[in-house]
Amino acid sequence: MATASVDTLYGQRNYPYNCWWVAAYADEVGRMPLARWLLDTPVVLYRTEEGAVVALEDRCPHRQAPLSIGKLRGDAIECGYHGFQFGPSGRCVHVPSMSSPPPIGVEAYPVREIGPLVWIYLGDQSRLDDVPPPPELAWMLDPGFEIRKGRIEIAANYLLLKENVLDLTHFGYVHAATFQITDWVDAPKVAKDGNTVTYRQEFIRTPLIPGMAIPLGLEPGALWNRINSGSLLSPAAQEGRSDFCNPDRSEPPAGRVRFAHLTTPIDQKNMHYFYVFGRDFAREEAAMDMFEKMVIEGFKEDEFVLEQVQSIMSRKPRRGSQGERSVKADAAGIEARRIIEGWMARETITD
Amino acid sequence: MATASVDTLYGQRNYPYNCWWVAAYADEVGRMPLARWLLDTPVVLYRTEEGAVVALEDRCPHRQAPLSIGKLRGDAIECGYHGFQFGPSGRCVHVPSMSSPPPIGVEAYPVREIGPLVWIYLGDQSRLDDVPPPPELAWMLDPGFEIRKGRIEIAANYLLLKENVLDLTHFGYVHAATFQITDWVDAPKVAKDGNTVTYRQEFIRTPLIPGMAIPLGLEPGALWNRINSGSLLSPAAQEGRSDFCNPDRSEPPAGRVRFAHLTTPIDQKNMHYFYVFGRDFAREEAAMDMFEKMVIEGFKEDEFVLEQVQSIMSRKPRRGSQGERSVKADAAGIEARRIIEGWMARETITD
Amino acid sequence: MATASVDTLYGQRNYPYNCWWVAAYADEVGRMPLARWLLDTPVVLYRTEEGAVVALEDRCPHRQAPLSIGKLRGDAIECGYHGFQFGPSGRCVHVPSMSSPPPIGVEAYPVREIGPLVWIYLGDQSRLDDVPPPPELAWMLDPGFEIRKGRIEIAANYLLLKENVLDLTHFGYVHAATFQITDWVDAPKVAKDGNTVTYRQEFIRTPLIPGMAIPLGLEPGALWNRINSGSLLSPAAQEGRSDFCNPDRSEPPAGRVRFAHLTTPIDQKNMHYFYVFGRDFAREEAAMDMFEKMVIEGFKEDEFVLEQVQSIMSRKPRRGSQGERSVKADAAGIEARRIIEGWMARETITD
Repeated sequence: MATASVDTLYGQRNYPYNCWWVAAYADEVGRMPLARWLLDTPVVLYRTEEGAVVALEDRCPHRQAPLSIGKLRGDAIECGYHGFQFGPSGRCVHVPSMSSPPPIGVEAYPVREIGPLVWIYLGDQSRLDDVPPPPELAWMLDPGFEIRKGRIEIAANYLLLKENVLDLTHFGYVHAATFQITDWVDAPKVAKDGNTVTYRQEFIRTPLIPGMAIPLGLEPGALWNRINSGSLLSPAAQEGRSDFCNPDRSEPPAGRVRFAHLTTPIDQKNMHYFYVFGRDFAREEAAMDMFEKMVIEGFKEDEFVLEQVQSIMSRKPRRGSQGERSVKADAAGIEARRIIEGWMARETITD
Repeated sequence: MATASVDTLYGQRNYPYNCWWVAAYADEVGRMPLARWLLDTPVVLYRTEEGAVVALEDRCPHRQAPLSIGKLRGDAIECGYHGFQFGPSGRCVHVPSMSSPPPIGVEAYPVREIGPLVWIYLGDQSRLDDVPPPPELAWMLDPGFEIRKGRIEIAANYLLLKENVLDLTHFGYVHAATFQITDWVDAPKVAKDGNTVTYRQEFIRTPLIPGMAIPLGLEPGALWNRINSGSLLSPAAQEGRSDFCNPDRSEPPAGRVRFAHLTTPIDQKNMHYFYVFGRDFAREEAAMDMFEKMVIEGFKEDEFVLEQVQSIMSRKPRRGSQGERSVKADAAGIEARRIIEGWMARETITD
Repeated sequence: MATASVDTLYGQRNYPYNCWWVAAYADEVGRMPLARWLLDTPVVLYRTEEGAVVALEDRCPHRQAPLSIGKLRGDAIECGYHGFQFGPSGRCVHVPSMSSPPPIGVEAYPVREIGPLVWIYLGDQSRLDDVPPPPELAWMLDPGFEIRKGRIEIAANYLLLKENVLDLTHFGYVHAATFQITDWVDAPKVAKDGNTVTYRQEFIRTPLIPGMAIPLGLEPGALWNRINSGSLLSPAAQEGRSDFCNPDRSEPPAGRVRFAHLTTPIDQKNMHYFYVFGRDFAREEAAMDMFEKMVIEGFKEDEFVLEQVQSIMSRKPRRGSQGERSVKADAAGIEARRIIEGWMARETITD
C-alpha cells in the first residue's frame, strides 16, 4: 500500500493554521484569564462582562509579558507588568503613563462557542470565509445524550492520535485489559467522501462484554450487533460512533455511543487532547461514572503508547531507520494523511 | 519613539566582556573553592592564606575537570581528578607524577574587592586600562547606612532586569500588593550623561505608605516629598535612590534609601542578580528585617515576570510576532540599550 | 607529548559500530522484553523458549512503537500497539488483520553469551568476520574467582571512562577516602601490542592498606609487593589486574584481583558502565560484600568526576578554551585514543 512518508509528516509543521481548532471547553473560560499555547502561539482566553469569549495573542507588544498574568478590567485585559490594557479587538485602550493609548495592539482571534466547545481560528483572516466551519457534532447538543469530557496534554504530534483512533485494531493490544474488546481484528471498510474519511466495522451477533451489556440491561455475553464507524471531520476533529442493535429487530439502535477526539497541536511534538463522549442510554450518574473511569484508563494507555512513539521519532535513532510499513488496517489513517496534506496545500501562511 | 530591536539585543551575546562585573559577595569567598559561571565562563573563586581573592578559569587544562571540586593547598588550588595544582597566577605549580610542573596553566582573572562586593574582569586584558573601573557605590561603604544583600539566579537575560529597574511604572502592577506604591504612573524625566542614563521622579506632598512612613516615625499617609532617581552606571550596575524630605523644611533628606541592582550574565538566558540595599534611618535589626522581607517579596515578583518574558522570547512563537512597541516610560531603558550597544561596539573579543 | 584533540574525539561519534559491545548481563535477559539504547540504537533483548538470547531493533516498522512495551508470544515478540509479531530473525511472522504476514521486519543483531555477559554486534554485518571477537576475560569463567558485578549509567562519553581507568594517578585524589591508595603517584610503564595498550606499575615492599591486607590475612601495613597492570582490550573492554605477592618468596601471587570495565555508549554523551570484578581469595560472602561496598563507593566517585567533565565539555564555555594538555601519566590513555581512532578508520557505516 502506498504510504505518505512519516518523515515528511513529522519533520516540519504538519498542522494547518487555516482551520478551526478547539481552544478550550466553554466552562474553562471565564473572568480569569486562561493561558494556552495553541499551534505554537501563546493565546489568552477570557469572557467579556456580557459573556462573550475573547481570544488574544498572549504577549504584550510592549515588553513581551504574557497578558494572562494580568487582570481583567471590564472587557479589557491589563498586562501584569506595566498595566497596558487591550480590548476584545486586541487594540490597546490604555497605557497608564499616557493620556491616550498609542496605536498598538495584539492579534485577536475569531472564536465560536458551540455547546461545550470553544473553537478558535488562528489562520489567515483573509481566508476565513473559505475555511470550513467547525464540524457539526450534533449529539453534543442533543439532550438525549449524557456527555462527559476531559483534556490531557500528550507529548506527541497530534497526527499520531488521529491515526490511533482511525485504526482500532489496537484495541486488543493497548486496551486488552481496560476495554476488553478483543474481536476488532480485521481491517474495517474505508470510504472517502470529499475531505472526510470514514471507516465502518460491523460485529454481527457478537457477544457483548460486561461493560457494554450491563448498561444496556443485558446479560454479559449476549449476542447483539455492534455497528462501529468513525470519521475524520477535519484536522481538528474525529468522531467515533458505536451503535448497539438487537439482532432480532429492525428498529433503531437500542443504544448509541459517541466519541469526539479533538486534538489541537501545542507544537510539533505536543498536543492538547480534548475528548468528549456520551451515550443515549444508562445516563444515570453512577453508570456514567463507571463509563468515564473506563474511558480515562483507556486514554491513558493511548497516551503512553503515543508518547513512546513520539519519543522514538524525536530521538532519531542513528541506525536501523527503515521508514514505516503500512498495512490494510491503516487505510483510514493513510487517507487522513492525504486529506491533511490537502489542507496543508491550501495554507496561505508560511512559517 | 525609536526602539532598538529586541531581536538584535537578545539574539546573540548582548553583554560585554570588557567590563567589570560582580562575581560574588566578599563574604562568599574564602578557603573553600566557590564555583560560579560568569559570562558563560566557568570561574572558581577562593582566597589565599593572606586573604587575597583569586579568580581562575574553573577547568583543568589537563582533562577538563572543574578545579572547584578540588581542594586548596596553601595558595594553590589542587584539581580533584589528578592532583594538578595551580597558583593564583593560574600557572601550574605541581603535577604529582612529574618532578617539575609543565608550562601549562589556566586563565587568571583580575578581581577587585570593594566593600561587600568582589568584581571580576573577564575581558581582554590588554584593554584593562581603558575600561572604566567598577562604579562607585559610596553608600555601601558609609557607616551611616545599614545594608542588606542577596543573590538570586533568574532565568532571563540580564538586560531584562536593567529595563525593569529603569521603568518603575511597573510598581503598580507587579508590586501592587507588596510595595503598595501605586502613584508611580507618569514617565519620569530622563537625562543622559556620557555613559550614564538617569531618571528622576519627584512626588511632592504625597501620602506615604505605611512601609515608608513608619520607619520615618510618621503617621501613614503623611504628606511628604519623595525624590526618586536611578542611574545605569555600567552594564553591570544600576543604582536606585529614594530620598524622603519634609516638605516644610529645606534641610537635607530625613531619610535616604539606596538600591544597587548588580546583574551578571550566567549566559544569554540566565543571570545572577546581586542586590544590595540600605538606608540611613530605621537601622535597627527588627526594622531592617521588615524592610528586607518586603524587598525579597518584591524581587520574587520581578523574577516571576522576567522569567515569563524570557520564556516567551526563548520559545519563539511562530505567529503574531510584532517586534516590540516602546512608549515614553521606556525612555531610560532605551537609552540604557544604546549605552550598552556602545560598550558592545568597543568589544575586542569575538565569540 | 603529542595529543589527540579532545575536540575531535568528542565533537562527533567516537565509538565504532563494527565492534562487539556488552548489551546486558546474561541474568538480565529472560522472558520479559528488556529495552536498552546501545550506540544510539533502540534494542530489545529477550530469550527464546529454549533460552537463546535474541536482540532486535526496538522499533516496530509499522508505526514506530517500541516492541519492548509488548509481550513475548513463543519465540516471537508482539508489538504492544497493533499486535504485529516478529521472530528471532527480525522477520514479521504475524499481523492480526492479515492472513499472511507482509515482507517487513526489524533488524536482528548478532549476540554472544559468554559467562555473565551478553555481547552484541550492531555493526556492518558484511564485516562481522573481520571484526575481532569479544575479548577473552578468562577469570570471569574461572571457578577459582568469586565475582560481583553492576551497571551504572553515566552521563559522559564512554571514552572518558577509558581514560579514567588507564591513568590511576587519580586514586590519590578521587578515591583518597575510599580506596586509600595514595602511593600511585608515578606514571606507569606503557606498552602497546597491536590493538592493545597495557600499563604496568609495580609497588615493591610497600605497606598494604587495611582493605588489601585483611582479606589476605595480613596485618595492615605489611610490606608486600603489588603488581598492577591494565589493558585496553577493545573500545568496549578494559581489564585491570592486581597481584599481591609475598616479597620473600618466588611463588605465584598469593592473591589476584581482576576488574573488567565494560562501557557501551548510549549516545555521544552517555554510557552504560558494566563493571565486573573478582578475586581468588577471601571469597566468602561477607568479605566480598565489604569489597563490593568499597568498589561501589569508588565508582560513584568516578561517576561524579566524569559527569562534571562531560558537563563542562557539553556546555562549551565561550571563553578560556585551551584544548587540553597531556602529561606522561596520560601515555596509556593517549595510546587508547590512537587505537580507537584506528577502529574508527575501519568503520564501514557512516552516520
